[in-house]
Amino acid sequence: MIIVLKPGISKKQEAAVIKEIRSLGYRPHIMRGVARTVIGAIGDELTHQSLETLITAFPRIVECVMPVQRRYKLVSREAHPSNSTIRVREHVIGGKKIHLMAGPCSVESEKQLMKSAEAVKAAGATILRGGAFKPRTSPYEFQGLGEKGLKLLARARRETGLAVITELLSETHADLVAEYTDIIQIGARNSQNFQLLIAAAKTGKPILLKRGLSMKIEEWLLAGEYVLANENPNLLFCERGIRTFETYTRNTLDLSAIPVIKKESHCPIVIDPSQGAGRADLVEALCKGAVAMGADALLIEVHPNPAEAWSDGVQQVSLDLFTRLAQELRAFILAAGRE
Amino acid sequence: MIIVLKPGISKKQEAAVIKEIRSLGYRPHIMRGVARTVIGAIGDELTHQSLETLITAFPRIVECVMPVQRRYKLVSREAHPSNSTIRVREHVIGGKKIHLMAGPCSVESEKQLMKSAEAVKAAGATILRGGAFKPRTSPYEFQGLGEKGLKLLARARRETGLAVITELLSETHADLVAEYTDIIQIGARNSQNFQLLIAAAKTGKPILLKRGLSMKIEEWLLAGEYVLANENPNLLFCERGIRTFETYTRNTLDLSAIPVIKKESHCPIVIDPSQGAGRADLVEALCKGAVAMGADALLIEVHPNPAEAWSDGVQQVSLDLFTRLAQELRAFILAAGRE
Amino acid sequence: MIIVLKPGISKKQEAAVIKEIRSLGYRPHIMRGVARTVIGAIGDELTHQSLETLITAFPRIVECVMPVQRRYKLVSREAHPSNSTIRVREHVIGGKKIHLMAGPCSVESEKQLMKSAEAVKAAGATILRGGAFKPRTSPYEFQGLGEKGLKLLARARRETGLAVITELLSETHADLVAEYTDIIQIGARNSQNFQLLIAAAKTGKPILLKRGLSMKIEEWLLAGEYVLANENPNLLFCERGIRTFETYTRNTLDLSAIPVIKKESHCPIVIDPSQGAGRADLVEALCKGAVAMGADALLIEVHPNPAEAWSDGVQQVSLDLFTRLAQELRAFILAAGRE
Amino acid sequence: MIIVLKPGISKKQEAAVIKEIRSLGYRPHIMRGVARTVIGAIGDELTHQSLETLITAFPRIVECVMPVQRRYKLVSREAHPSNSTIRVREHVIGGKKIHLMAGPCSVESEKQLMKSAEAVKAAGATILRGGAFKPRTSPYEFQGLGEKGLKLLARARRETGLAVITELLSETHADLVAEYTDIIQIGARNSQNFQLLIAAAKTGKPILLKRGLSMKIEEWLLAGEYVLANENPNLLFCERGIRTFETYTRNTLDLSAIPVIKKESHCPIVIDPSQGAGRADLVEALCKGAVAMGADALLIEVHPNPAEAWSDGVQQVSLDLFTRLAQELRAFILAAGRE
Repeated sequence: MIIVLKPGISKKQEAAVIKEIRSLGYRPHIMRGVARTVIGAIGDELTHQSLETLITAFPRIVECVMPVQRRYKLVSREAHPSNSTIRVREHVIGGKKIHLMAGPCSVESEKQLMKSAEAVKAAGATILRGGAFKPRTSPYEFQGLGEKGLKLLARARRETGLAVITELLSETHADLVAEYTDIIQIGARNSQNFQLLIAAAKTGKPILLKRGLSMKIEEWLLAGEYVLANENPNLLFCERGIRTFETYTRNTLDLSAIPVIKKESHCPIVIDPSQGAGRADLVEALCKGAVAMGADALLIEVHPNPAEAWSDGVQQVSLDLFTRLAQELRAFILAAGRE
Repeated sequence: MIIVLKPGISKKQEAAVIKEIRSLGYRPHIMRGVARTVIGAIGDELTHQSLETLITAFPRIVECVMPVQRRYKLVSREAHPSNSTIRVREHVIGGKKIHLMAGPCSVESEKQLMKSAEAVKAAGATILRGGAFKPRTSPYEFQGLGEKGLKLLARARRETGLAVITELLSETHADLVAEYTDIIQIGARNSQNFQLLIAAAKTGKPILLKRGLSMKIEEWLLAGEYVLANENPNLLFCERGIRTFETYTRNTLDLSAIPVIKKESHCPIVIDPSQGAGRADLVEALCKGAVAMGADALLIEVHPNPAEAWSDGVQQVSLDLFTRLAQELRAFILAAGRE
Repeated sequence: MIIVLKPGISKKQEAAVIKEIRSLGYRPHIMRGVARTVIGAIGDELTHQSLETLITAFPRIVECVMPVQRRYKLVSREAHPSNSTIRVREHVIGGKKIHLMAGPCSVESEKQLMKSAEAVKAAGATILRGGAFKPRTSPYEFQGLGEKGLKLLARARRETGLAVITELLSETHADLVAEYTDIIQIGARNSQNFQLLIAAAKTGKPILLKRGLSMKIEEWLLAGEYVLANENPNLLFCERGIRTFETYTRNTLDLSAIPVIKKESHCPIVIDPSQGAGRADLVEALCKGAVAMGADALLIEVHPNPAEAWSDGVQQVSLDLFTRLAQELRAFILAAGRE
Repeated sequence: MIIVLKPGISKKQEAAVIKEIRSLGYRPHIMRGVARTVIGAIGDELTHQSLETLITAFPRIVECVMPVQRRYKLVSREAHPSNSTIRVREHVIGGKKIHLMAGPCSVESEKQLMKSAEAVKAAGATILRGGAFKPRTSPYEFQGLGEKGLKLLARARRETGLAVITELLSETHADLVAEYTDIIQIGARNSQNFQLLIAAAKTGKPILLKRGLSMKIEEWLLAGEYVLANENPNLLFCERGIRTFETYTRNTLDLSAIPVIKKESHCPIVIDPSQGAGRADLVEALCKGAVAMGADALLIEVHPNPAEAWSDGVQQVSLDLFTRLAQELRAFILAAGRE
């Protein structure tokens, strides 16, 4: 930790701060600068208490306290310099192949799901997405088919060979959902619901962790740390747009998260352009950008009839559009040196 | 719903949209304007599916779709024109008296808690806050004393007569926490963890719902709707700062939420200046502003020794400071016509 | 400056960084910590080049660079520990008296302005606001009466004795505007138009500097520094709402800016609740909060007939409402120990 | 305009609103819905006053007012369905060829500029960027070489054949800057400095308009409208990152602006990844994404020696890195069907 003192501090005041630094287990190292004195507090920031409390304890002496270490370990590139790969049935995510995960926002019926599954498979997708438990902003909106939806997903998997990803909403459903799915999705609204993250991690299934609407990169990495610290190494980060002042798009997809996650972490990065923009008409361009920038997979909402979708119809693309999109992506996948 | 068509749409295209509007259960009403045609779709938006899907279904015809109704009902002023009051032991929140809820961020020890409880009671607080289960950004930070913390809170209540508020983090702890506390707090990170909200509501205890870091007012009201829709009328909204670009303060406390909640809802509004600023040195001014603007209660973090707090020491005020603050607030409480 | 090196850096790599630090005029001071090495670079950060370039120059060696000094001087509390006061005709802003600055968004006509001026004077305002040059988001909106508007303001001053504040939009109008006004307003959109700030400062008139829509406190203080550095000591900061994700209000008024500016700077702080909320119905509550938190003045938009205002009618309060507001503020002004 | 009334409004109250709508020049059209009454006000929103003032004038009757028309005309796709192209010396921007605009943040010396110019030309750039007048957050930072910088740019153009882009900061310099440059850049901080935009437009030179840090797409289009409305059809939009809560990057580059601008406008779109991320290590990935998503040009900061750059060294890439970047982009340019 670095502790910056205010200008014009007496030796006696300085000594009081130094004493407290020592009592909290750090070794102080004093640097007298031109404008003010800076104290380096030497000690492991992950095992000692933060010194940021010195600001409150000595409001007239301490100007600011700056941590030096990163707070995450297991998800960091430092801990695991090569890329992690996640095995999902016969597929490997995080390797050379870019995966398409596609399907409806909500599982609505057998017909809707099977039609979607067959179309996305034909277009080249390897993983079927579909919500059985849906987090809805209003209690009056469709909350998902629940276990019935999970069974339909399992059936689609059986018939098409696609792997399945679906969202977990409740700690009490962790085992149930794990029984049916190949990847557990933790949604943006639950990205710092640590109890849910722990319950999901403990199932041993790969976890796709969406970035929260106002989550800093560091907080996202730390939420991922909860998964790895609970002995589940199979973590995928998924950028799905952050909340900004812009209203033209529902969220602002932060594509710079791709190189940032690649730099800071060894885990694969997935992009969700459907939530990211909240508008079907931007999905194609965002997919191209994501592929060019190094995404390992894309998570795309498709629906046989978007006009009659029971949730988020405005951001789901039609099956035809998805097929065309998958074709148009090929040139960019090759340009990126991927498959 | 209002559906705005693009300019230069043919009668045939228009008819296709109108047909779909009818098939989704609305009655269309056409207005031909100077620049474009607008369709009013008449029908209850809360019981029918949203027409926003028309944008995706007819991307070349429909320009935008605008809902007309509010999506929340039970929390709204329309549903309950007078202010709701919440009874907590012998206290009434939402009435003439402004309540001080104060105590440490985390319950750390019997000594720390009892010392805090006695001091805040002496200064005029009626409710003791203290975290037993703590949501921490990093898995390596102190996660709270758990049930032991709840027992210490119960003991402090017994000895001081203060009512108690503490946070619920996990659905599986709802009954346990309800057994010990008078008010259940739902934290900002769980503000759209609807399963937790439902579990909390079902205990029947008053629920204090913090605003999420990037939650719009409408989303906050809808999250509150989950509580009332689960037959628990005892809801308090708590503004605790939103996430913005500013870094001087940890969050930006949105004090305009006070008149806005008072206008839109009948539920009491509580202000948390400690989380709101993330700096102890701003707490006093923010409390004064909150009281002047009509807050029903303040939720303040205090600690006998902020320098050695196990969590969030930088935003906790000392017991002395709290005592002085409570005194300084009196003039503003009177100016606001409160007690 | 503090330079944090990555873990596992060789002596040779370290030496390269140290050499560059020296060549940029700083004296390096090395601290070897538990996890990584930190270099304190001793030297005046305001007169030397920033070392942040080391991140780009040594991307594999340097992890981050943290400045230690504040970048502003003349506006800081350190430079001038007591509060500055600004004399405007016979008034003093920044002293014990809280001033009301009120008037229409745009000057529209003699009748509209005179009616407003008389009403706000009767209600206790000391300063008349009114836009003669208007910055409008669209080129098709009313751009202000220009010099004719300035003349009307001067006439209102002559007839009522109110001082006048109006906005300067163009460097080329600085002398013209200074001839007619008592305070020059720099609007939010021009808050980092440094050429305009310099031109305004050089007129010698007091400058009211609005905070930009996405301006950090530090950037605002530095923009103010342009005024003082151009030998004009008469600076007022004006908070008028920042841009956030919330759409219920047009902006989010950051009232915590009041204690923050008071802490960091000696200049007076003014609050504009009209722009701040963008809704007339929140103005009253925001004024009360601002007064309680220590604002030195309020800048309020009023209009004799808001429905027919030529600009921003949605945020202007009627003359009756303003009169009532001024009365209701009295109790809070007294509670704050002001006049 | 659509005017939504509150529930339970009497005929008399309704009549008052309708009368005001008529007096403001619109023709009212009433729709009685299930929950509330909606009035369509028919009339050209661009030539009549906004009806949003009805909210303030009838606060107990009118719930909200929603505009129906777009506020921009000349920049819109509707006005000019095919893409606009901008001729800059022998180059065409907005056509099949993707242009690289590259050079130092600030012009510092003849040697620095010439070295940069030769290197970027050799790597394939067609346009040289370099700041002669620099807007700096602090008055104590390097403000640019001024006219001397412009002369160096002109010399670099003469010797290399590159076209030149440089920023205009002051209305009073519009003719001077136009004399030396091929494209005038309006920076993010001046994006709503309409006087500067008008002065720049009147020189007849192509204008590159950066998006402001907190500018909505609509506001950006309207700022561009100021250029076209002043009879200069040569407008380029440039996305350079918006301000969000994320601090890992200095700004959040909103790449979705590319398809959005292409959809809403006919003007070319340029991406500035250097400002966009504020970190040299992300520039390469962002360039790839921008090309894949349809950008017409890239604006990249390069410096012969980033460690000793006089401004923004942290985001400037070295000449070697730029050369490699230009090569790596080729595959993506071809995949996008561009040159």
